[in-house]
Amino acid sequence: MFDALIFNVNELKDYVARFFTALKVPEIDAQIAADVLVSADLRGINSHGVVRLFSYYGGGLKKGKINPASTLKVLKESPATLALDGGNGLGQVVAYRSMSRCIELADKAGLAITTVRNSNHFGIAGYYAMMALPQDMIGISLTNSQPLVAPTYGRQVALGTNPIAVAIPAGEERPYVLDMATSIVSIGRISLYEKAGQPIPLGWGINQHGELTREPDQVLDNGALLPLGGPAELRGYKGYGLSLLVDLLSGVLSGSAYGKEVGHPSDEGNADVGHFFASIKVENFRPINAFKTDMDNYIRTLKATPKLPGQDRIYIHGEKEFDLAEKYLRDGVPLMVEIVDSLKKAGEIAGVPFDLKPNN
Amino acid sequence: MFDALIFNVNELKDYVARFFTALKVPEIDAQIAADVLVSADLRGINSHGVVRLFSYYGGGLKKGKINPASTLKVLKESPATLALDGGNGLGQVVAYRSMSRCIELADKAGLAITTVRNSNHFGIAGYYAMMALPQDMIGISLTNSQPLVAPTYGRQVALGTNPIAVAIPAGEERPYVLDMATSIVSIGRISLYEKAGQPIPLGWGINQHGELTREPDQVLDNGALLPLGGPAELRGYKGYGLSLLVDLLSGVLSGSAYGKEVGHPSDEGNADVGHFFASIKVENFRPINAFKTDMDNYIRTLKATPKLPGQDRIYIHGEKEFDLAEKYLRDGVPLMVEIVDSLKKAGEIAGVPFDLKPNN
Repeated sequence: MFDALIFNVNELKDYVARFFTALKVPEIDAQIAADVLVSADLRGINSHGVVRLFSYYGGGLKKGKINPASTLKVLKESPATLALDGGNGLGQVVAYRSMSRCIELADKAGLAITTVRNSNHFGIAGYYAMMALPQDMIGISLTNSQPLVAPTYGRQVALGTNPIAVAIPAGEERPYVLDMATSIVSIGRISLYEKAGQPIPLGWGINQHGELTREPDQVLDNGALLPLGGPAELRGYKGYGLSLLVDLLSGVLSGSAYGKEVGHPSDEGNADVGHFFASIKVENFRPINAFKTDMDNYIRTLKATPKLPGQDRIYIHGEKEFDLAEKYLRDGVPLMVEIVDSLKKAGEIAGVPFDLKPNN
Repeated sequence: MFDALIFNVNELKDYVARFFTALKVPEIDAQIAADVLVSADLRGINSHGVVRLFSYYGGGLKKGKINPASTLKVLKESPATLALDGGNGLGQVVAYRSMSRCIELADKAGLAITTVRNSNHFGIAGYYAMMALPQDMIGISLTNSQPLVAPTYGRQVALGTNPIAVAIPAGEERPYVLDMATSIVSIGRISLYEKAGQPIPLGWGINQHGELTREPDQVLDNGALLPLGGPAELRGYKGYGLSLLVDLLSGVLSGSAYGKEVGHPSDEGNADVGHFFASIKVENFRPINAFKTDMDNYIRTLKATPKLPGQDRIYIHGEKEFDLAEKYLRDGVPLMVEIVDSLKKAGEIAGVPFDLKPNN
């Protein structure tokens, strides 16, 4: 669908880290943020990758709207619960540190929840959920986001695309990694269609009058995304309910902004994004080996389900992304020509020229 | 849509309790099970109410396939985690006691998770989530269920309708209560259409060849329900992912049956259903009053969103059910004539004649 240039993953990470460092982000934080951002491209979630380097992150750092020093403040703490203030830091760094703390607590308490207020857009939710996997824990990562989704029976945005990410370890099989917007698609997906000059499938979004549209511009221009499920008859109010749930846990429970008050990365002022992280230690419920054996068995059974005509494979969540990450690590990660152009512009503004040579 | 007789709620609960007692369920357990079951009808979720009194519960008790004494056994325990074996007891009683234990733990630890293996179908998931509300806690209730849903690209059932229920307290506004099957609709909804001789909307289910169908019989006869979202283009794999998630937490984490191995209530042998409950104490994250003020404000803001043409109200999850429960408590709860007939038959088998007089 898109013309792409292919870059070495480590070189790309190194560039992104240099970009952040030039904008006064401490070296180690810049590496964390770079790893999260490039991981999105690596996993094929290009709507959430370096395409947003300047528009979501660099621009805010440059303007002083995002704090380059991500300093967490503890608001409330107990052996299994932790409420943090993200100090308006870079979302990726705040989230990485908050999930690390959550995992530390869960290692002792068997499970833990960490809420975060006063943060910023953190990239792909799945990254933080997956941090639990090496510890044989189940990881959960939720965040609210700027308003883009209309509630059922509404015609204007009132909720974010508020993603749900859950990572669950398996044995010989790959882990289960769900990482989904609670809208049918993310706004980044709509933007990619717009950049490519292609129409979107009917059902993804509505225009400013509340009508379904195939024009990505009309969704982006005072229209709205629809929640998972679509119309009420097909139970779109469940997707609306999940979007609201994520915001109640990420925004309201943390004491952050919520609903229409969550800032867009390009707005003036603090975005005040809220996050919710949880870690669950499997061993507190049953022996990890028995658990992993069952995970493998379940995954294999699902994949053996008889297929619809024309289909030859049933996927487990995260599987396509693991496949792509393997391929891109080996062969390089493809970036659309338009994205490479935007990186060059961002590099000029930040004073870090985008000088990587593509493999193709 | 249906001809209905109207019954006093307390009389109906009393009848259901007498029914269970006659099948050797201890008096107090019978009252718990009756309260859960009639609460479904009271909240308008008639697919999960007394329509299932015999087919899902009474039949199993009568045959000795469900243990009338619901004895919980602790498998693993820590201050915030508890793994239980439900002793093949009545699902409602097992779930009620397990969630009670979960809330007790969360009262001290700030949050808790209880998993349950070796249980049975527990009725509406929302009932147990709502038990957390009077304690100013967020309640979560998940369960797996017999296979009824096809995974994306599959044409046969491999997963349950595996519901997600979450209850979150508000202040002056009613609480948020999400209680949703992760399929587009539950199998009970299909059965109600079949009983009423009406076609189902296109998209709810497929026939045995994997084709979309409007015939409820074809879904029930070796067909399958579709996960929330429907086709892949509209992201049905998210609904599939949520269904799988619920089973990984309820079935695999608890050490219960999972996927196609979860027993149908009418099968021979233990159903070995698994549940997952969580309670989160709001006060551990922020002051409860500030939380409730924000909940009220969010709910009011959502309801004020401009409406689609022809719509005059935006609902919060649980709101329709609270409205119905108020009305039915006052005026009596309507039961379809066919359901009343099935109660009469069930009453004869159990030796507890269904002798309630309708109000109409």
